[in-house]
Amino acid sequence: MSPAPTHEFIPPGSRFHALRSPFPMKRGGALLDARIAYETQGTLDAQRGNAVLIVTGLSPDAHAAANDADPVPGWWEGMLGPGKPIDSDRWFVVCVNSLGSCKGSTGPASIDPATGAPYRLSFPELSIEDIADAAAEVVRGLGIEQLACVIGNSMGGMTALALLARHPGIARSHINISGSARAMPFSIAVRSLQREAIRLDPNWNGGGYDDDTYPESGMRIARKLGVITYRSALEWDGRFGRVRLDEQVVPGEDPFGLEFRSKATLEGHARRFVRRYDPNCYLYLSRSMDWFDLSRSRRWRRARRAGADQGRTRPGHRRQHRHPVSGAAAAGGGRGPGPRRRAGGLPRHGFAAGPRCIYGRPGTLRPGGAGFPPRALIRLHWKHSANGPCPSLHAGPSGPPPPCISPARTG
Amino acid sequence: MSPAPTHEFIPPGSRFHALRSPFPMKRGGALLDARIAYETQGTLDAQRGNAVLIVTGLSPDAHAAANDADPVPGWWEGMLGPGKPIDSDRWFVVCVNSLGSCKGSTGPASIDPATGAPYRLSFPELSIEDIADAAAEVVRGLGIEQLACVIGNSMGGMTALALLARHPGIARSHINISGSARAMPFSIAVRSLQREAIRLDPNWNGGGYDDDTYPESGMRIARKLGVITYRSALEWDGRFGRVRLDEQVVPGEDPFGLEFRSKATLEGHARRFVRRYDPNCYLYLSRSMDWFDLSRSRRWRRARRAGADQGRTRPGHRRQHRHPVSGAAAAGGGRGPGPRRRAGGLPRHGFAAGPRCIYGRPGTLRPGGAGFPPRALIRLHWKHSANGPCPSLHAGPSGPPPPCISPARTG
Repeated sequence: MSPAPTHEFIPPGSRFHALRSPFPMKRGGALLDARIAYETQGTLDAQRGNAVLIVTGLSPDAHAAANDADPVPGWWEGMLGPGKPIDSDRWFVVCVNSLGSCKGSTGPASIDPATGAPYRLSFPELSIEDIADAAAEVVRGLGIEQLACVIGNSMGGMTALALLARHPGIARSHINISGSARAMPFSIAVRSLQREAIRLDPNWNGGGYDDDTYPESGMRIARKLGVITYRSALEWDGRFGRVRLDEQVVPGEDPFGLEFRSKATLEGHARRFVRRYDPNCYLYLSRSMDWFDLSRSRRWRRARRAGADQGRTRPGHRRQHRHPVSGAAAAGGGRGPGPRRRAGGLPRHGFAAGPRCIYGRPGTLRPGGAGFPPRALIRLHWKHSANGPCPSLHAGPSGPPPPCISPARTG
Repeated sequence: MSPAPTHEFIPPGSRFHALRSPFPMKRGGALLDARIAYETQGTLDAQRGNAVLIVTGLSPDAHAAANDADPVPGWWEGMLGPGKPIDSDRWFVVCVNSLGSCKGSTGPASIDPATGAPYRLSFPELSIEDIADAAAEVVRGLGIEQLACVIGNSMGGMTALALLARHPGIARSHINISGSARAMPFSIAVRSLQREAIRLDPNWNGGGYDDDTYPESGMRIARKLGVITYRSALEWDGRFGRVRLDEQVVPGEDPFGLEFRSKATLEGHARRFVRRYDPNCYLYLSRSMDWFDLSRSRRWRRARRAGADQGRTRPGHRRQHRHPVSGAAAAGGGRGPGPRRRAGGLPRHGFAAGPRCIYGRPGTLRPGGAGFPPRALIRLHWKHSANGPCPSLHAGPSGPPPPCISPARTG
């Protein structure tokens, strides 16, 4: 008997790590014979000290950049590779596909070994913490005791924070791009509407769709809604400005469609996404972000108190370089609307005794120290995204910054 | 033969003004035997000089407040009535339902006299300028040569600006709440997605739905998307803060729903809207906002140049009180992100020889002069909505402001 059809989209260069079985889930239940897909670039040194972990946004797979097993350019090709900001000549870079995804790791689209059919909605409730725990198993499985850095963007920013909170000492440094320590009401509202659009599509059919009845309308709306709200109103207005295309539209073609330049952007995003992502996996991962709240972690609260104490007793420029978190949060708060931004955004003081972190500090920042991966100049600047206050990362050699690596591309 | 079923929702106290027939439409075509629904409060004085016109957002009807013909509270009950900020003991207040709506004025849900069936998508292309021209006919039909004030919020803010630009001298003053002189890319993207959600609902059926096949899913998503984006991410986060309800949710009830306090808000808005608004009318009115661009009006450009000249030669506090537009725009620009906000938001200099206007000036403002309706202290403060930079209006006697009259309630 051939296996039931699934909606998994697995890059050809994927390697797989078998999770311990059963793999316990934070909100109850466990997975049997589950696996995590990952890819690597570079070589692990003899001390196993040059490893960098990338945890991704909701939609990307583990193929962040071209490698020997798969020469096709990846979703972060401009950032990762020999001589690039995350230099695979120096660093051993591991990118993991999230637990719950449909891109190679076990998720709702995978075959449940107990039934031989896809899990669909019988997959246990998924949390960001589960994704982090699974990523930690990959790291340990590769013989890595401590990462030089963990990099996470969008949902991956949450995953990275959960990893640091639940696995003390697992990384010496951390880069958080567009991540958030806690889901915020606006993001929650947007994500719930994305999920509602999928579930209201008659083709979703309680999660029981197949290729012929894929909930395409719901997925299109969910994706476009994401693309719209990943950028703030100001960014939209700045990007698409005054130019409009209505004169060029063929009359009667699509009488209530979008007649402006932004149409092409939205349509392109939707086309690249729809039918290349499993709707049930989308629902599970989206909900896991809503539930995330690092402030509920006991270890986090302890670290936060310790960090606050240190911040009061030893302020100053030098200290900010050693513990960029405090500086970053302070700078962000100064530009933003105050306490709320700090409260909901990136942690103000975190992991006092833990890794050095970079949380999108406005302006230009030249991180030093051997433990910090990107050699090149890194420009971080704040913008507002669906995940609350967040940095977007420009990286490259000095000179004009390359195109922004935005959540819309990576999340 | 009984008329074909329509989705019109007409308040019982409505009065009707018959538009000239044919009524020409800006983008081509004309309407035969069309009408505008309106309601009035107060008494027109002998000089016909105390009239105030209210033009509404996309969804409201003409029943802004209780009156003799319909004692049920209206959608702006707190603002309008005897002794209220817009005091009907002093002012004769006319609220018109927009052309193209389904609340009494002729629109896509109305019967086309040529066929005896609802217009649906055979209704001619609708523009904000058409809505303004129809409102002007009501004003003239009531024997009013010049309004004391025209008040418009959300889409009505656009309508009011179009009215002032196309009908010179029609009003002595203007209050613009959450309006915009030009549709901006973010708003256009959101509105296009709202329309797409309706059109993707199989029940929309090319505009051919009926009561049994109303596109409820599409309308739910459209409304919720509007409610989410009427408020900025910061306002959401401030309003719904840290409180969440996940502990109180019945497990398994709605596994991918919204588990937070904002759920009730969103659901309530959707429930109050769905099946009480005609989907085709929504599509027409929404698209009319996308097309609106006052900067393309020749008269507007002329007035803008004149205003700019005056602004350079006679600056100062006194001048700002006489021509609040300049002051308002300058104050808004100072708080916002600069040129773009000014460019896309409310007009910087407008109607130099025209009415006195108030465009959501931050802080507290006590307008003087007999021509200005609200006697009470008016507090206007900026916030960000789907229509770009906009003011929300708090009004009442001195003391703490009453609940915000927000676009979510009025638009």
